[in-house]
Amino acid sequence: MAASVYLARQKMHFAMFTGSLGGQVIWSSDVENYLGIHHISGIKLVEAFDEHLEDYRKAMELHEGEKVQRVTKTKGGFSVETERGAYPTRTVLVATGADHRKLGVLGEEEYSMKGVSYCATCDAPLFVDKVVHVVGGGNSAMDAALFLAKYAKEVHLLSINTELMGDEVMKKNCLESPKITVHFSTKTVGLKGGVMLESIVLVGADGKEVVTPTEGVFIEVGLVPQSDFIDFVGKDKSGQIIVDSHNRTNVDGVWSAGDVTDVAYKQIAIAVGEGSKASLDIIHYLQSTQT
Amino acid sequence: MAASVYLARQKMHFAMFTGSLGGQVIWSSDVENYLGIHHISGIKLVEAFDEHLEDYRKAMELHEGEKVQRVTKTKGGFSVETERGAYPTRTVLVATGADHRKLGVLGEEEYSMKGVSYCATCDAPLFVDKVVHVVGGGNSAMDAALFLAKYAKEVHLLSINTELMGDEVMKKNCLESPKITVHFSTKTVGLKGGVMLESIVLVGADGKEVVTPTEGVFIEVGLVPQSDFIDFVGKDKSGQIIVDSHNRTNVDGVWSAGDVTDVAYKQIAIAVGEGSKASLDIIHYLQSTQT
Repeated sequence: MAASVYLARQKMHFAMFTGSLGGQVIWSSDVENYLGIHHISGIKLVEAFDEHLEDYRKAMELHEGEKVQRVTKTKGGFSVETERGAYPTRTVLVATGADHRKLGVLGEEEYSMKGVSYCATCDAPLFVDKVVHVVGGGNSAMDAALFLAKYAKEVHLLSINTELMGDEVMKKNCLESPKITVHFSTKTVGLKGGVMLESIVLVGADGKEVVTPTEGVFIEVGLVPQSDFIDFVGKDKSGQIIVDSHNRTNVDGVWSAGDVTDVAYKQIAIAVGEGSKASLDIIHYLQSTQT
Repeated sequence: MAASVYLARQKMHFAMFTGSLGGQVIWSSDVENYLGIHHISGIKLVEAFDEHLEDYRKAMELHEGEKVQRVTKTKGGFSVETERGAYPTRTVLVATGADHRKLGVLGEEEYSMKGVSYCATCDAPLFVDKVVHVVGGGNSAMDAALFLAKYAKEVHLLSINTELMGDEVMKKNCLESPKITVHFSTKTVGLKGGVMLESIVLVGADGKEVVTPTEGVFIEVGLVPQSDFIDFVGKDKSGQIIVDSHNRTNVDGVWSAGDVTDVAYKQIAIAVGEGSKASLDIIHYLQSTQT
């Protein structure tokens, strides 16, 4: 959306394809870190972004509800393929975001945004003096636990393995924090409650199922970048598109921005900045290569 | 300011030093490309940023009106020196932006604030029904010309190039404005007058020097990165601090973000994104290296 504002203002001929506008932002109950707009729901923020785009609608082709299925290389550039057609283009900006990896347990969907969160950075301040659980045992789970420990009364970090995996110092900090308890060999099998989440169902090393009260569960078992539809750009092991400081991929004519890239921090302000930067770099590229 | 929001929310112990909040943004008459906030003056946008920070004032040390004079390396990290004291720190984020470039012609200093201005937004209302000249041919020069056209009788935009460079919407608006005359291939070589500025000395495509009466000259010829106070980080030829995709400099413990860096595009959204990214990378660094 940020890229589109820039491209439209610069009178570029472009089309934007999206299943639905907004992406992950919509799932944030309270966004507090997009500079200039304090305390806004994810939905309202997407509405503000959409209103911003509104003035430029005539200058762009917005294909809403039209997800891209495949991008292929052609002689003159690229072809963007959806179920409705194939669109030729000289440049492509991939800004398809990522989806949080679901745990896949009973109650997960029901209590999403009702105690279950996929973003400690976003939601931790809502859990002051509360008892929370973090599901996961890698860097992002430890990061979430350490961050939550600044707010919550008790943080329980639930690892299915016999050890934490990742950064040694974060491990040490987690294990030494008076607020964090690390539970090893612990599998999360369910989430229960009434209207709001009330408890988490765990299976420990002894194989017994235990229902434990909780006020918040943070699921940190990884992200799934939405990059399957483009197979000819460089990606890291997890499928994130590798970009340089201009948000260029390793393929001439293809840029990427936001959560689908290998940029470590998945934040609205960062994605907006990268979308803006990528669009300006695309304009510069087209102006310097125009035939 | 973006970094401070993140650092404060993450309960980091930090201090922010600034001559004054806002920087270049304050000089923008109309900001239209910060996603989510359409059509706002630079001053109002800085106010919105400041209000956002307001909630975190207790969580940070804000040293307003206290410019950093020097940053030096110490055994445990760095020392940030101002005229009021030296502050030890483990990490530094340089986000000092850029300042207006001087034209470097005779009379420029003499008539500064006596007809010569670097801030159309600030000074335009002083030039109602007057004849003014804007030196420059980029986005900031066009922005200044368009803003001045609301007040002045005649606005002459002086570009040394054969075309205007930047935003297409602004180009169109400048070329179509009945008040703005664009002069191409025109070099400004001097400023003359008595107590106050009276005329501008121009050299056109024909190489002839012409002295033209004017009542105000607005100089919009680019930016000087504010990086002199730190001499041990890698910079490019123009003094911009070189950063990688995490906004790290080549010195462990020092980050940089925004217009002071070598990131090609100087935009509010990009600076905000980079400030956010740098702060998260600093937090990650401190969490992984804490003793």
